[in-house]
Parts: sequence; structure tokens; C-alpha cells
Amino acid sequence: MALIECVPNVSEGRRTDVVEALVDAVRRTPAVRLLNYSSDRAHNRSVITMAGEAAALKAAVIALFDAALQRIDLRVHSGEHPRIGAVDVVPFVPLDGATLEACVELAKDTARDVAQRFDVPVYLYEEASTDPARRNLEDIRRGGFEGLAAKMATPGWAPDYGPARPHPRAGASVIGARMPLIAYNINLATSRLDVARQIAAAIRSSSGGFPYVKAIAVSLEERGIVQVSINLTNYEKTPMLTVFDAVRREAARRGVAILESEIVGLVPAAALPEAAAQVLQLASFTPDQILENTLRA
Amino acid sequence: MALIECVPNVSEGRRTDVVEALVDAVRRTPAVRLLNYSSDRAHNRSVITMAGEAAALKAAVIALFDAALQRIDLRVHSGEHPRIGAVDVVPFVPLDGATLEACVELAKDTARDVAQRFDVPVYLYEEASTDPARRNLEDIRRGGFEGLAAKMATPGWAPDYGPARPHPRAGASVIGARMPLIAYNINLATSRLDVARQIAAAIRSSSGGFPYVKAIAVSLEERGIVQVSINLTNYEKTPMLTVFDAVRREAARRGVAILESEIVGLVPAAALPEAAAQVLQLASFTPDQILENTLRA
Repeated sequence: MALIECVPNVSEGRRTDVVEALVDAVRRTPAVRLLNYSSDRAHNRSVITMAGEAAALKAAVIALFDAALQRIDLRVHSGEHPRIGAVDVVPFVPLDGATLEACVELAKDTARDVAQRFDVPVYLYEEASTDPARRNLEDIRRGGFEGLAAKMATPGWAPDYGPARPHPRAGASVIGARMPLIAYNINLATSRLDVARQIAAAIRSSSGGFPYVKAIAVSLEERGIVQVSINLTNYEKTPMLTVFDAVRREAARRGVAILESEIVGLVPAAALPEAAAQVLQLASFTPDQILENTLRA
Repeated sequence: MALIECVPNVSEGRRTDVVEALVDAVRRTPAVRLLNYSSDRAHNRSVITMAGEAAALKAAVIALFDAALQRIDLRVHSGEHPRIGAVDVVPFVPLDGATLEACVELAKDTARDVAQRFDVPVYLYEEASTDPARRNLEDIRRGGFEGLAAKMATPGWAPDYGPARPHPRAGASVIGARMPLIAYNINLATSRLDVARQIAAAIRSSSGGFPYVKAIAVSLEERGIVQVSINLTNYEKTPMLTVFDAVRREAARRGVAILESEIVGLVPAAALPEAAAQVLQLASFTPDQILENTLRA
């Protein structure tokens, strides 16, 4: 079974009845598991987390668009978070048994159907992107719904599917595929925030560190220690242990030890065996060597 | 779902029709997954591997005893391997979501039923054992079927369930619970077998090393290297990484590096995340932090 996660972000976080109607559209889709949903009033935005196999997830996303287009009008929407669509972003994420490639296919397939059915322009992003200049969500979303009509008329900004102008009420949507994100904190045995800042700067991709690593320094005042707080956006390309070892080295150079680390929330099943295989120098480890995986196959 | 593995060893490995009849008894039990079976002609013995939840496995073991008692007569059985029963040994092993305690309960419950239904004496062993002198399979089985009647009349050798004399044709059975075994080899960047021997001696429990570790030195002639070949019988009590680190230290003391390691066959799902949590210094990692585990729950 190829399990995929889907995490749509919708532009409604205040009207409870609307949020419930959107979540119900997912909940009623057969063979889709609703895992979580949460709304942010300030951002006026909700995030829905679901999982299932490809065909079921596509049906759930179509049902979600249907429900959202009946209830959300971006012309009267306000909120702090940048957005261009009623259903703003739809990432597909590979879990157990699924590949990133399968998620890219699912993203394209879903994007095509959404554009056709609802006359909503769709941009593909991240791994599903067809244009390096439109790979990052931030670049696609820059200018927001308010600047979308002008942007779409600019060369290079025709959508991947659907009309080359915004849907009047629902704007445009961004659909794509990405690896699961791992939120991972490393606590240092020091109260020196400058040390954590230097380490964060050394490992994050934006300042020349590892690809797929975002990192900031955080002070845990009540414990009198500091933390390097990490988002790892592709644990296959940059493994957890690689980041951990780098933090340890950078800390040691400054006379500081690692106290402990912690995973925030959930970690995909494959990430930890990969770290283990790395440290144990397993020459040729594959997930089908995990007993329970062969049972489920 | 609490998944348990069961690996009965039966005293028949030559008569194919008998082996097939025994395996069929397992195969026909609802909700039990037959994973593997193999027969050894020299040992005149077969090993059947199955998995399922507790109630279904118990039913399969009862069906297996029923089939075996109709077809196996130890009075005419010969083979190199020590054995005391037609169904000689039945270990229950915890997999995903199951505890060793649940397997102990299942072992006792199954043992009680087997003794009652078939008038076969049953000894509990390993984690299910009620007597330290009868914890090891080797101790219970010493003397074989041929010496069983005399042994059972000795003080301290009344069975845990059933009559205090062998079943005339089926002898006695040994039922218990144990952790999954991990077969794990570490290859050294040297051809010196003496180094591998010293390391194996340093880590194995029988010569004062780590509990739950069996280790021998092996020469891989064709590759010109040596190997420390390890059986780890409880990866929770003695983690894989602990053994790996010890081998690395012992090798380094002798100027030798680890080349690579390998898992032979399958590894239980929990063992590798545990190794990862150890190396990543995860302060409070629990298996329900694995995304796919929460999905299955």
C-alpha cells in the first residue's frame, strides 16, 4: 500500500461553519483518513491534514475545492498570511511505501482535474514544478490575490493548467509534491544564544550550509539553555544524522556539548531507520528488510 | 493492532506430506499469515513462521498440535537435532505494537489449552519461564525424548501444565516468549581472524561481554576480510548501537577499522528507530511519534 499525506491550506480560519463544511468534504470521502485540522484566526487560514492512497486523495481534494468555491470569496477575505487562492496550497507528501515521483504524478493529475472542473488556474510547485523560477511557494504567491491578475498577465506566469487569469472569487491554486518535513530541535548545554546562532548559520542552506535545512537559534529561558531549531525538508537528501553530526562538531569547536535532541510532532517512518543505517554503517539496507514491512506487503 | 510472530519447530523434516499437512493447519487458520516454512532432512525437523494477533495465533498452534499428534510418533523419529516433542518448541515474539508481556500471557494461555486438550505436558521457557533453572531451552531439552520419562520423574521437572509424564508419542512441548532475534554482521577492514576472535570474545555474554549477545569470528576468504557475526536476542536490553560502538572501540584498539555492517534477513521495525534515537540523543522518543504508526493506530 502506497500511503500519501495531503495537507491543503485553505483561506478561511474565522467562520467556523465554513471550516467545518470544508473538513466535512474530506471526512465524507471514502478511504481517506482525516488526521487533523486547525484554524488560525489572525491568518484567517486553516490547514487540513489527511492521508490515503492516490485515487482517494484526489477525490478528497476535488470535493474540498467544490466546497471551498461555494463558500470562499477572496475579494472579501482578509488575513495576515500571503495567499492567492481559496484553496491556496495543496502539497502531496510520500509516506510508507510511496515515492516522491508518485506524489508528483498525483499533483499533476489533481491539478489538471481542478483546472478543468472549476476553471481555476493552477501552478505546480516544489518537486512537481515545471519551471525552476516557480519552484518556491513564496515566489508563486508573491503579490497575493490582489496582485494576481497583473502577475498572471506577465511573461512566464501563465499557469500550468487552466485559464491565464484568476478565478474571480477563488484566485489561483498551487499544487505540488514535497518530502515530509521533519521538525527537529537540538538542545545545547549552554545558555549562550550567540553559540546557537553561529551553529544555526553554519548548517542552514540559506547561508551556505546543508541543502534542505532551515535553522534558527532559540533561547529556552526557563531551562537556562539554548536550542538550534531545525526544519529538515528532505531527510533523504540531507539525513538527520548528517545535521546532528555537524551541530555536534560546530558546538565542540566552541567548547559546547549537545544536551539532547527532540523531534517535534511526528517523524516519517523511514527517517529513523535511515539514520540508524548510517551510524551502523549498514552497507545495503533496504526498507523491505524491516520485518513488519514485509508482513504488510 | 498488536502483531505477534510465532515460530513453531516440529519434529518432522523428511515426510513431505506430513510437513504439508502441518503447514496446512496453519494456513487454514483464519487471520493468521503463514510467512515461511523450511525443513531440514538431516535434523528431521521443520520450522514454520507465522504472524497475527494473539487469538488467531493460539488457534493456529492448537490446529498445529492436532495435526502433528495425528502424524508424528517420536518413538520412530530420528534426527541429529535435540528434541523432546512432536511439536517441540513454540516461541511467541512481539512485533509492531505488541509487548513481550502480551507474548508471555499468550504463551501461558496456549500452553494451558494444549495440555488440557491433548494431554501433552508443557514447559514454559525464556521470558514465560516460571523457574530460572528452566529458562533456557537447552536445559529443558537436555536428554531428549529418550530420556524424558526419567527426567520428568526427577524433582524440579514437573511440567508447568499437563501430566507429569511424557505423552506416549508426542513427548512434551516447550512454549514461551522471547524478543525477536537480530542477526547482524560487522565486517572488519582486515584479514586477521585473531582480531575478529578477540572482539567476538570481548562482546559476547558467555565470556563476560554484553547480555543478550552471541558472537563468533568468521573469515570471508573470497573478500580477504574477517567478520564478527552477531546474534542479538534482546535489542531493547542491549541495543544494536551499543554493540556496534563496542566493536568499533575494540577494533580501534587493535588498529583496525569497521568496513561496513549488514543485517541478515529481517530486522524488527522498532530496532532501527531505537538505534537512531540513541545516536541522535533523542531525549524522549516514543514509537507513536512515527507518523505511519499513528495512522495505523
